[in-house]
Amino acid sequence: MKKIAVILSGSGVFDGSEIYESVLTFLRLEHHGVQYQCFAPNVEQLHVINHLTGEIAEGETRNVLVEAARLARGEVKDLADADAGDFDALIIPGGFGAAKNLSDFAVNGPECSLNEDLVRFARAIHEAGKPVGLICIAPAMTPKLLGTGIQCTVGSDEGVAGAIEAMGGKHQLCSVEEIVIDQEQKVVTTPAYMLAGSISEAASGINKLVDEVISLA
Amino acid sequence: MKKIAVILSGSGVFDGSEIYESVLTFLRLEHHGVQYQCFAPNVEQLHVINHLTGEIAEGETRNVLVEAARLARGEVKDLADADAGDFDALIIPGGFGAAKNLSDFAVNGPECSLNEDLVRFARAIHEAGKPVGLICIAPAMTPKLLGTGIQCTVGSDEGVAGAIEAMGGKHQLCSVEEIVIDQEQKVVTTPAYMLAGSISEAASGINKLVDEVISLA
Repeated sequence: MKKIAVILSGSGVFDGSEIYESVLTFLRLEHHGVQYQCFAPNVEQLHVINHLTGEIAEGETRNVLVEAARLARGEVKDLADADAGDFDALIIPGGFGAAKNLSDFAVNGPECSLNEDLVRFARAIHEAGKPVGLICIAPAMTPKLLGTGIQCTVGSDEGVAGAIEAMGGKHQLCSVEEIVIDQEQKVVTTPAYMLAGSISEAASGINKLVDEVISLA
Repeated sequence: MKKIAVILSGSGVFDGSEIYESVLTFLRLEHHGVQYQCFAPNVEQLHVINHLTGEIAEGETRNVLVEAARLARGEVKDLADADAGDFDALIIPGGFGAAKNLSDFAVNGPECSLNEDLVRFARAIHEAGKPVGLICIAPAMTPKLLGTGIQCTVGSDEGVAGAIEAMGGKHQLCSVEEIVIDQEQKVVTTPAYMLAGSISEAASGINKLVDEVISLA
């Protein structure tokens, strides 16, 4: 049975993993009878966003691993302990957590740096020839995470696309129900909530991404 | 177009709304092309549970409405402002938040009291002959929320079933993929994560519940 690692970055679109994208990913993996294990880095969030007002909750701190546990009903492990040898593929859902907690792309754009445990694990998966799927804003990490020249998409956001190109990536326009596949590099990406207006729209692309990642694994 | 109210109780199974149950509810409502609006009470959570350890996060406080906004991508309104005349039905997903924040059933069992805004809104829906769906542990509120003698289920938990009976409810055993319908009272319930071992198992009952609530609306 194939086993897939899913890396979360908190719980909530504005400061963590996008909840719908994450649940849709789990649901599709289950649909295929594929096992999965969630991981998250044991670090403090960049900040906490009040999701009702959209404002920063001043003075509040939350831990990425602890909040990710909400999305995984407690079934999440420290990313520092993830071993690429145990998994056939990796999927990273979106949400601003990918750009705030897994990387600092939201702050530093093309000059961003990435969480070290993320880099170690994702590169080991990639260098072993196993597929990596990235959803929503997570593909912005592709050039620095997996290498330059890899085709990927965040949909049609010109700013993020430009930053990906500036880091040596190859951005492709993509609609919400489609995916971009770099067959040689085994990297699959989809815009999801970079473009989605509903959960079903996000699902249309995410289901294809999960199907393709499993097929390549 | 039918419009359904969904009442959330936070974000996370151990101190708020069960995330998967909520997302599955939204997804099925969308599947039917039905509009929905989320509400949550603007009150402090009973407590905050660290979902990684299962322990109470001492000294930490969170607001139910603010945390529910994570589950709704910000699209949630104060339950105090909900008007039953605007909706054709009501669905309340589970998670301990239903027993800790919407009511104090987790603390006081059959002697529980319920959030006043919840009672006002849910009774108005019910008394107007509109259907109410309750998921997981939320059906434990049925007798005090909607009246005695109403058939409902939380699956096969003898303790909770006994408490429902003690409050004047009528509990029925039910498997995870099934629902209990009180046709006359238009109340629909399903066990979901009171029994589910996977998201797909939870979905099997929740999809039927949403279908039935829409059909009765």
